[in-house]
Amino acid sequence: MIIAILNLFTFHLIAQQTLAEKLGYAADAKLLIVHADDIGLAQSVNDATNEAFASGGITSGSIMVPCPWFIDFAEYYKSHPDLDVGIHITLTSEWDFYKFGGILPSTEIPSLLDENGYFYPTTEEVGLHADPMEAEKEIRAQIDRALDYGIKPTHLDTHMGSVLAKPELVEIYMKLGKEYDLPVFAPRMMLMTMPEETREMVKNEFILVDGFFMLNVDGPEASWEDEYEKMIERIKPGLNVIIVHLAHDNAEMQAVAVNHPAFGATWREKDLDYVQSQTFHNLIKTNEIQLVTWKEIGELK
Amino acid sequence: MIIAILNLFTFHLIAQQTLAEKLGYAADAKLLIVHADDIGLAQSVNDATNEAFASGGITSGSIMVPCPWFIDFAEYYKSHPDLDVGIHITLTSEWDFYKFGGILPSTEIPSLLDENGYFYPTTEEVGLHADPMEAEKEIRAQIDRALDYGIKPTHLDTHMGSVLAKPELVEIYMKLGKEYDLPVFAPRMMLMTMPEETREMVKNEFILVDGFFMLNVDGPEASWEDEYEKMIERIKPGLNVIIVHLAHDNAEMQAVAVNHPAFGATWREKDLDYVQSQTFHNLIKTNEIQLVTWKEIGELK
Repeated sequence: MIIAILNLFTFHLIAQQTLAEKLGYAADAKLLIVHADDIGLAQSVNDATNEAFASGGITSGSIMVPCPWFIDFAEYYKSHPDLDVGIHITLTSEWDFYKFGGILPSTEIPSLLDENGYFYPTTEEVGLHADPMEAEKEIRAQIDRALDYGIKPTHLDTHMGSVLAKPELVEIYMKLGKEYDLPVFAPRMMLMTMPEETREMVKNEFILVDGFFMLNVDGPEASWEDEYEKMIERIKPGLNVIIVHLAHDNAEMQAVAVNHPAFGATWREKDLDYVQSQTFHNLIKTNEIQLVTWKEIGELK
Repeated sequence: MIIAILNLFTFHLIAQQTLAEKLGYAADAKLLIVHADDIGLAQSVNDATNEAFASGGITSGSIMVPCPWFIDFAEYYKSHPDLDVGIHITLTSEWDFYKFGGILPSTEIPSLLDENGYFYPTTEEVGLHADPMEAEKEIRAQIDRALDYGIKPTHLDTHMGSVLAKPELVEIYMKLGKEYDLPVFAPRMMLMTMPEETREMVKNEFILVDGFFMLNVDGPEASWEDEYEKMIERIKPGLNVIIVHLAHDNAEMQAVAVNHPAFGATWREKDLDYVQSQTFHNLIKTNEIQLVTWKEIGELK
């Protein structure tokens, strides 16, 4: 009887283990994934992201499978199979003169595409037009294409939050996470907009991101040091993700991002420089933050 | 009676006018189009080609409509509508890790695509697999897409000669030239492989390219000056076309052309430098060569 109670007590303790404990840290550790979005968008992005992976500036990243430079990254990955990369589910094409559509034939996903066969530029338009069945087919095709090219994704996330555009798409996103056995990027604040039932399921079955951070400045004239310092000081115990956008400030990236000072070429090079700076890594250390990956989290089963 | 004979004589003279005379040059003038291929392939190519147009290094160029940087060029063209650009009909995707497929949904052109939905890498494979009806649909879609984006093409030509891969495709190429009322790039030597009947039709209804030249060196270690000097001295009276391949030798172009020293990034920058050099333009002058465009030729009606 005593043994049974003890067992129950131990079980209860284990069940209550925080994510941090499961990963071998103190229960109240501040965990941080430094995550680079948009791999595959441009050569400049691939090159910058690979550089930041190599130097330890980022821990994770995710790939836009429908974009022109996806295969280039898949080739790089062959000789770097330990990189922590997920699928950056892509349903939007936001640049003015550099566009992309889906993996599937345009005839199979008409509700996802504009009159020229490209994805809509905004998440709002995805919410307005996307037929959930077509979106599901296209998302599966993106994950499967990455698998076909030999990539072992560590997680799912979503370009411009497009998969969070409406509840039916969120449901597909979570369902595919389970089906492909991958953690999904799901900020805890997402729960607020969910129906009670879904909320309980998500809380029970997914690891949620407690703190989600992304630089929110209009253009590259802001102080990266000041903005990131404030951000890092706001990081609390639990799972945190900082999303960064890396590229070199070169002719290709300038032309991709023409008319977009926010998330443009200079902006992205400042992000690249920052994640590789001593300032950033000193702040992580002084704030007692533990860098983690999606892969480690996915392997907790 | 004498008047009638004179008239007949005059008519005969006009009918016998050479292309050069029609364009206002001496009957035996050496006409030359300096033509840059592959607009739309990469940002680096667009930038280099626009630079060479602006400096007078080239007279003409042609656009790969299915490629990622097509829209970028279409946007540039809006403010440069006098550029002499044609459609570089594209049915091949020759680079290792930077691939493209057709404008049409893959389900409509399966015979043009490999198992991943990209064009085959070689002209031979196009000859082997392409269903002519599917090819015709795709070529029309490429021309129509350019028209939709406001481009007024001045001619048709073909990437890697893929439209010359077999007689049925050549027929479509010539037919579409007539239908869209555009000159087609058709070297006189093409006649040799044509059935007698087609040959007569082509000779009567198309302006043929008498001399077609393209740098034939394996890698960028060759001497551009020597090779082009020999080439230019071989130019004879009639219509001549030199095809050049322009880009900046930058990270994007190096990654597009990885494993391809011929037509690679350094190769293309040497072409860009050469067409803009004083050496090239002095040779054109001393060899009494007249620079012309496809547009002038198309307007002779």
